[in-house]
Amino acid sequence: MSSKAMSSQARIETALEALIARVEGDGTPPGLAAAVRYAVFPGGARVRPSLCLAVAEACGDDQPGVANAAAAAVELMHCASLVHDDLPCFDDADTRRGKPSVHLTFGEPRAVLAGDALIVLAFDALAQGCATAPQRLAPLIRTLVQGVGLPRGIVSGQAWESETEVDVSLYHQMKTGALFVAATRAGAIAAGQSPAPWTALGDALGAAYQAADDLLDAVADADEGGKPTGRDVALSRPSLVASLGLRGAYEHLRGLVDQAVASIPDCAGASGLREIVQAQAVRLTPKQFSRSAA
Amino acid sequence: MSSKAMSSQARIETALEALIARVEGDGTPPGLAAAVRYAVFPGGARVRPSLCLAVAEACGDDQPGVANAAAAAVELMHCASLVHDDLPCFDDADTRRGKPSVHLTFGEPRAVLAGDALIVLAFDALAQGCATAPQRLAPLIRTLVQGVGLPRGIVSGQAWESETEVDVSLYHQMKTGALFVAATRAGAIAAGQSPAPWTALGDALGAAYQAADDLLDAVADADEGGKPTGRDVALSRPSLVASLGLRGAYEHLRGLVDQAVASIPDCAGASGLREIVQAQAVRLTPKQFSRSAA
Repeated sequence: MSSKAMSSQARIETALEALIARVEGDGTPPGLAAAVRYAVFPGGARVRPSLCLAVAEACGDDQPGVANAAAAAVELMHCASLVHDDLPCFDDADTRRGKPSVHLTFGEPRAVLAGDALIVLAFDALAQGCATAPQRLAPLIRTLVQGVGLPRGIVSGQAWESETEVDVSLYHQMKTGALFVAATRAGAIAAGQSPAPWTALGDALGAAYQAADDLLDAVADADEGGKPTGRDVALSRPSLVASLGLRGAYEHLRGLVDQAVASIPDCAGASGLREIVQAQAVRLTPKQFSRSAA
Repeated sequence: MSSKAMSSQARIETALEALIARVEGDGTPPGLAAAVRYAVFPGGARVRPSLCLAVAEACGDDQPGVANAAAAAVELMHCASLVHDDLPCFDDADTRRGKPSVHLTFGEPRAVLAGDALIVLAFDALAQGCATAPQRLAPLIRTLVQGVGLPRGIVSGQAWESETEVDVSLYHQMKTGALFVAATRAGAIAAGQSPAPWTALGDALGAAYQAADDLLDAVADADEGGKPTGRDVALSRPSLVASLGLRGAYEHLRGLVDQAVASIPDCAGASGLREIVQAQAVRLTPKQFSRSAA
């Protein structure tokens, strides 16, 4: 089956499976190989790589292999950040995606190293995936770096939790928004298009996702969220709910989704992409708000 | 001053300084920025990037900016591995390069994130540095990945410490040798040459360096080594001294240096490179062996 004939979910899982399978055995310690696989499968909703592929498709998706690599790289970075965020020195989370966290299952050393390995593998995925379009490699790397590294990627966002004075919106932009922006921009680059028109979509969706995550943490039970809830209050972390209240945070979320839909540039796949964004928004909203809105 | 007129040490420090300076401020949390700088400066002997540049120079060094980026990327990966290796869940080292370790100085969260940031920055360095020779980017990334990632790079090497059965020579090859091989191969690729003839040099030097490190751990005081000594025995880590004895490990080291010198391919800069390798070998040998050999 060609990449184009496959569903987005199938493309993402196939690309991730091939990348993980390639680094199992042949010298990788069995415990580390198991931890890396556990960190990636089964996945969550694969929101970021789906967004990356949706943008690539809206942009014509002329090199599906490049788009698959970009989507997989974005997801591997997300998985790496979850493994490291869950470590005892950060959130000390016992569960993730509804199962015991990586460090609880494989030990702290393997959790640190699994995160490192996933970061490295993400760049490797881009280098491999761009064999047919080498001129797209450097811009894809730069975009991914902007999403995860310094000065304004996930790593910086996470490190703001160690500072005494924090700008909450900047913190969210880095910790969550930056990788959404990388996902939309990478989707455009992977399809040979300019990334600039796609930054606003990633920004708005990242902010919406963060708002939804804060709402979920405040109102949902652990079963709905797949990870411990009430952690923002417990850890005194900056949160939209803390600053805007429950209803204010929900209104903020609705506004961001509208903004995301409005930001989609005029292109062949625009209407399909608008539907995908709306569907994601419904999926993101905690059940009690979906009910009250309906 | 052009890159070519600068000494190798100046090229390396200049390249590293430019990379680190670029990610300070502009959103990076001050504590993380300080931890990242602390992890990179002042450096140790910069053995790996020096080797990378020496090979690039022996290969003609037609694109000094690419070679500088490759050397800096190799060193950033090395720094990242030191920061993570020193974490409480691994070596729990209080000192490194003669000063308190990163996690002791900046806390464990910032140490984890500084390592992550340095890994990301290494790939960013390659993407930036290859702007003038984009066809060298993918091979440089692949080579760096082989040095640090799965299945046989530093991360795998470190993870073998969590397994119950370990092949000592394979463990050393991954934990130390792999990045030396990446350094020599990256030097050749950065100069537009095939990396294959340079693998043996990296292999032999990596093994020599590991032998010297084991000897130093067994016989030197902490002052000479710049980090705690006697750790292999204290942590029951596999070590050449444990398996060959002190004298055997020293003979092994001498043999590896001869092997490294003999492996240098015929090229314009071969004799200069042979001198550099010999000088490194003398520098690496703990004082008591230098004295007894002299």
